[in-house]
Amino acid sequence: MIQKLIENIKKTGAPIVVGLDPMLSYVPEHVQKKAFEEYGETLEGAAEAIWQFNKAIVDATWDLIPAVKPQIAMYEQFGLPGLMAFKKTVDYCHEKGLVVIGDIKRGDIGSTSEAYAVGHLGKVQVGNKAFYGFDEDFVTVNPYLGSDGVKPFIKVCKEEKKGLFILVKTSNPSSGEFQDQLIENRPLYELVGEKVAQWGEEHMGENYSYIGAVVGATYPEMGKVLRKLMPKTFILVPGYGAQGGKGADLVHFFNEDGLGAIVNSSRGIIAAYRQEAYSRFGAENFADASRQAVKDMADDIDGALKNSGR
Amino acid sequence: MIQKLIENIKKTGAPIVVGLDPMLSYVPEHVQKKAFEEYGETLEGAAEAIWQFNKAIVDATWDLIPAVKPQIAMYEQFGLPGLMAFKKTVDYCHEKGLVVIGDIKRGDIGSTSEAYAVGHLGKVQVGNKAFYGFDEDFVTVNPYLGSDGVKPFIKVCKEEKKGLFILVKTSNPSSGEFQDQLIENRPLYELVGEKVAQWGEEHMGENYSYIGAVVGATYPEMGKVLRKLMPKTFILVPGYGAQGGKGADLVHFFNEDGLGAIVNSSRGIIAAYRQEAYSRFGAENFADASRQAVKDMADDIDGALKNSGR
Repeated sequence: MIQKLIENIKKTGAPIVVGLDPMLSYVPEHVQKKAFEEYGETLEGAAEAIWQFNKAIVDATWDLIPAVKPQIAMYEQFGLPGLMAFKKTVDYCHEKGLVVIGDIKRGDIGSTSEAYAVGHLGKVQVGNKAFYGFDEDFVTVNPYLGSDGVKPFIKVCKEEKKGLFILVKTSNPSSGEFQDQLIENRPLYELVGEKVAQWGEEHMGENYSYIGAVVGATYPEMGKVLRKLMPKTFILVPGYGAQGGKGADLVHFFNEDGLGAIVNSSRGIIAAYRQEAYSRFGAENFADASRQAVKDMADDIDGALKNSGR
Repeated sequence: MIQKLIENIKKTGAPIVVGLDPMLSYVPEHVQKKAFEEYGETLEGAAEAIWQFNKAIVDATWDLIPAVKPQIAMYEQFGLPGLMAFKKTVDYCHEKGLVVIGDIKRGDIGSTSEAYAVGHLGKVQVGNKAFYGFDEDFVTVNPYLGSDGVKPFIKVCKEEKKGLFILVKTSNPSSGEFQDQLIENRPLYELVGEKVAQWGEEHMGENYSYIGAVVGATYPEMGKVLRKLMPKTFILVPGYGAQGGKGADLVHFFNEDGLGAIVNSSRGIIAAYRQEAYSRFGAENFADASRQAVKDMADDIDGALKNSGR
C-alpha cells in the first residue's frame, strides 16, 4: 500500500489527502432535506446525508487526489447507521482507486490491538471462513501504550501489505502538554519518532516504510527535526488550512525527492463552499467548490516545493 | 454515574468489574454451533455467538457485580454485526442495573473528541431530534493529545452526569516505554495523573470525581504513588488475574474508606471454565464457572482489603 500511495501521488502530482470528516452542519441544506425526506430525522437520515455528501465530493475530486482520510469519529457519533456510512465511504473510495487512510487513532494492549488491526486492516476468522471488517488501507494509531500496542498492528500490516500512521506530534494547540515534555533534554515526540522509525524497519517498502507518522502542519520546526530523525518514514500532516498550516510551512516535512509527506485538509476542502473564497459556487454546487479547493491546495504545495527546490 | 457506581459497589460489597471481552475462541463450541446454524459462519453468526455468550455470563453474575467493561475492539473486529452485539450488550447490562464502562480508549482533537463523546456518552443532534448512539455510562480515554483531547469528553460528561477513566499507567509490559520516561525526575505517568486530578475537579461527585484514571494492577508500587497523587480520583485497575495481578497487590489502589478503585478481570471471569480451577463446571456450564470465579475474585479482594484494615 505504501507503493500504491506513492504511485498515486506521482500520478496526480499532488501529495494531498482529503479528510472526509463530515459534520452534519457541513452538509448543505438540500442534501440534508432529501435524506430526511427519505429516512426521517433519524440516525439513518443523518447517515444517508453524510454518505451522499461524501459521494458527491469523491466524485468531484477523485481524479486529482491520491488518498482520502475518513475520520471515524464523525461517523461513530451517529451510532451503527453512521458506521455503515463509514464502510460505504471506504468501499466507494476503493472503487475509485483511492488509498483510504482510516483515521481511527486506536491503540490498546496485545490481543486488543490485534482485534482492532484485524477489524480495520485484516480479516477476522469465523469458523472456516475469514472476513474483512472495515478494510481500510492505512489506519492511524496512538502510541501511548508502547510497543505492545503497536506491534500487533504491524503484524497484520505485514500479512496484508497495509500500513499505519502513528501519532508523533499532533496538530492541536495542547499537544505539547505531554508530547513536548523533555526527557534527557529531548522532547517526548522525538523519542516516539525514533521508535516509529525503528518499528518501520520491520515493514519496509522500496524507499519508504509501511509504518508512517503523524506530525501536525502547525508545528513546522518540529516537522523539520522529525523529518531528519525518520528519513524513511512517510509523514501524514494534518492541520493544513482551517487549523492554520500553509504550503510554505510544509516543505521541510518532505524529503529531497519531493516525497515522504502527504498533507491532509478536511474542512478546508469538504466545506469549501462555506468559505468566502468559494462562495461563488453556492451550496448547490458544493462539490465543485471542493474540486476548486483541491486544485488550489495542490498548487499551493506544489509552488512551495518548487520554490524550495524539491 | 460515579454515585451509582459507588452505590453498586456498596450494595454488592465487591469493587470489581467484569470485562466482557469475548474472543470467539472463548465461546464454548455449543454456543458457536447454535449461532452458526442460525446465521452461518458469517460476521452475523460470530456476533450472535458472542452476544449469547455475554448474555449468559451477565445473567449468571449481574447480582454479584456493580459494573461491566465491554472492550469494543472485540466487537469492532467483526465489523458492523459485531458493533450491533456491542450495543445489545450495553443495553442488556443497563436493563440489569449494571454500570457500563465502554473500554474504547478513544482520544482525538477538539471537535473530533466531541464527536466520540457524543456518540458514546451523549446525544447527537439530527435536525430537531437528538439520539443516543452507544450510550455507555463511562468510557476510557487516551491522554496523548493533552487537554484539547480530553475536555470535549468532560463537557459531554457534565451534560449527561457520566464519567471517564483516562489512561495513566497501563497494565501491559511495554507501558513503561513512554509512560515511565522521566521528566524533571518524575515519570510521565505522574504528570498525566496530576492532570487527571486537575481535570477531575471540573466534574466532582460527592467524594469522588466523575473523571477517573486507569492504572494497571501489574504495577502496584506505582499504583500506591498515584493513589496519593489523585485522592479524589476513582481508579479502574485492569490486569488482575490473567495478566498477573493478585488481590494483595491491590490494596494500595484503594483509599482508607475502602473505595476509590474498581478492579477489572476479563478472561479470568468470562473464560473461567477453561481454567483447571473451574474445569469441573464443564463447557456446558460456562456461565456457572464465571459466577464462581466472580465470587472467588470478590473474596480475594475483600480478604486483602480486610487484612490491610480498609
